[in-house]
Amino acid sequence: MNTDLEKLIEQITDMIVARLQAEHGGDAHAECSPHHIACALQAGASRIGTSWGQSAAASLGANVGQYIDHTLLKPEATRAEIEKLCDEARAFSFASVCVNPTWVKECAFRLHGSPVKTCTVIGFPLGATTPDVKAFETRRAIFDGATEIDMVINIGALKSGNYDLVKRDISAVVEAAHEACAIVKVIIETALLTDDEKVRASVLAKESGADFVKTSTGFSKGGATVADIELMRKAVGAELGVKAAGGVKDLASAKEMIAAGATRIGASAGVKIVQESKGVKVAGSGAPGNY
Amino acid sequence: MNTDLEKLIEQITDMIVARLQAEHGGDAHAECSPHHIACALQAGASRIGTSWGQSAAASLGANVGQYIDHTLLKPEATRAEIEKLCDEARAFSFASVCVNPTWVKECAFRLHGSPVKTCTVIGFPLGATTPDVKAFETRRAIFDGATEIDMVINIGALKSGNYDLVKRDISAVVEAAHEACAIVKVIIETALLTDDEKVRASVLAKESGADFVKTSTGFSKGGATVADIELMRKAVGAELGVKAAGGVKDLASAKEMIAAGATRIGASAGVKIVQESKGVKVAGSGAPGNY
Repeated sequence: MNTDLEKLIEQITDMIVARLQAEHGGDAHAECSPHHIACALQAGASRIGTSWGQSAAASLGANVGQYIDHTLLKPEATRAEIEKLCDEARAFSFASVCVNPTWVKECAFRLHGSPVKTCTVIGFPLGATTPDVKAFETRRAIFDGATEIDMVINIGALKSGNYDLVKRDISAVVEAAHEACAIVKVIIETALLTDDEKVRASVLAKESGADFVKTSTGFSKGGATVADIELMRKAVGAELGVKAAGGVKDLASAKEMIAAGATRIGASAGVKIVQESKGVKVAGSGAPGNY
Repeated sequence: MNTDLEKLIEQITDMIVARLQAEHGGDAHAECSPHHIACALQAGASRIGTSWGQSAAASLGANVGQYIDHTLLKPEATRAEIEKLCDEARAFSFASVCVNPTWVKECAFRLHGSPVKTCTVIGFPLGATTPDVKAFETRRAIFDGATEIDMVINIGALKSGNYDLVKRDISAVVEAAHEACAIVKVIIETALLTDDEKVRASVLAKESGADFVKTSTGFSKGGATVADIELMRKAVGAELGVKAAGGVKDLASAKEMIAAGATRIGASAGVKIVQESKGVKVAGSGAPGNY
């Protein structure tokens, strides 16, 4: 625990120093403002608030809940289902609820006073909108109460070799989010990418100032795999968070992901996962769909 | 043909009169401006530029191309594929190409000087963003060159009985689009709705000033069916267009949709459909995926 804490402090310090030594030398004063330092601290804490690797996975108890973004993204979700999601997230101390932008206001209201964050998705699930639209959508979501932003990269631009657009797209969201101390997870949609593209997308996300890389939307051909988590962790190093999403339906697969390098799990089966960790027998095979 | 023409003129006239007698009596002058009349004419022409019903379907020749929105919406589409889509649309005189917002600029440029429109999708495919985000996305797409806007309704709001939000959402897009003479097709995602909900969504679209109702995104559980086209046509009457999208993969199903009331077909198999109509033997089963 002490080693973990020291690692945490060291990483936060590194992060702050990196931010203060921002690309734009002239902006040094702005980057030194108490607001920016508070934001950097907060983002760093979210990013590495959970540990990862074999030992973290092995020692997982009921605290597995802190890894989980409790997720409901199907378009036909109703207000009643969204309210239930929030109440479960509060009861099980999940990291966040992850919902579509139209529900952010309701969730932020319902979770007020709890440590559970409201996370939403931007340019979701195709990622094929323009940078200014993604930035506007981000600002609107933050205005409504979101503090975590999961954005989808421009996959077609990546496939077409237009890395400049991929980066501008991520940067537009990061700028909008960091202005308001919200953190950004960059969904690279691994199921549609080659290994080279996965690495390139992860590096572009890191270079653009993102806080996390995330495997999948849950709406494509496949979800998170252990191999992809390992690859992405290697690509971004220890400073960024890695989120495994799509297909994580039980405690065993959550543990595998954490062992491979994940610090966050996007799942609709969060309640089942926590109950399993407490030794509660759970009927059925988790929530339907890809999450 | 003469009867068709008379019907067309009558419908356009009705439409203009309806627009001039707008809800907001005080805005009568604005609604009478040459710009608004030109827009109403243009929207009316797009909407009923093709006829529908049994006889229209029976007399379909190579002119089936004018019904088709040549569609490529998969997120991993590359620039080369988008360029091919545009060149096919020009060669086969399709109504439009339908692409994600990130490709609108390229398509409008490549189709410049041809009658083929650039159509894009808004709030796609989940429909779960907020009205102001959909309006911003619409304006950006029009700025980039789109003249047809296919938006997805807020399905969760409909399912939760929040019809006011469903209507505000559609209206926000219609207002943004009509300002610039672009037409709006409202995707109701039939696969997720009950028959009652399909009718209600269609009526809300009509009340909000939309130009078309459209069955599906092609990204959900199912696509267009003959029964849904009949239902939607009945719900909106003769003044609106009806677009069948998702799963229309050959000439036979295109004809069925037109016979049932469709005036536009969203398909990735447009080239195959036109070739079939010309008696060209086509190998394979059309394009992969839901479109």
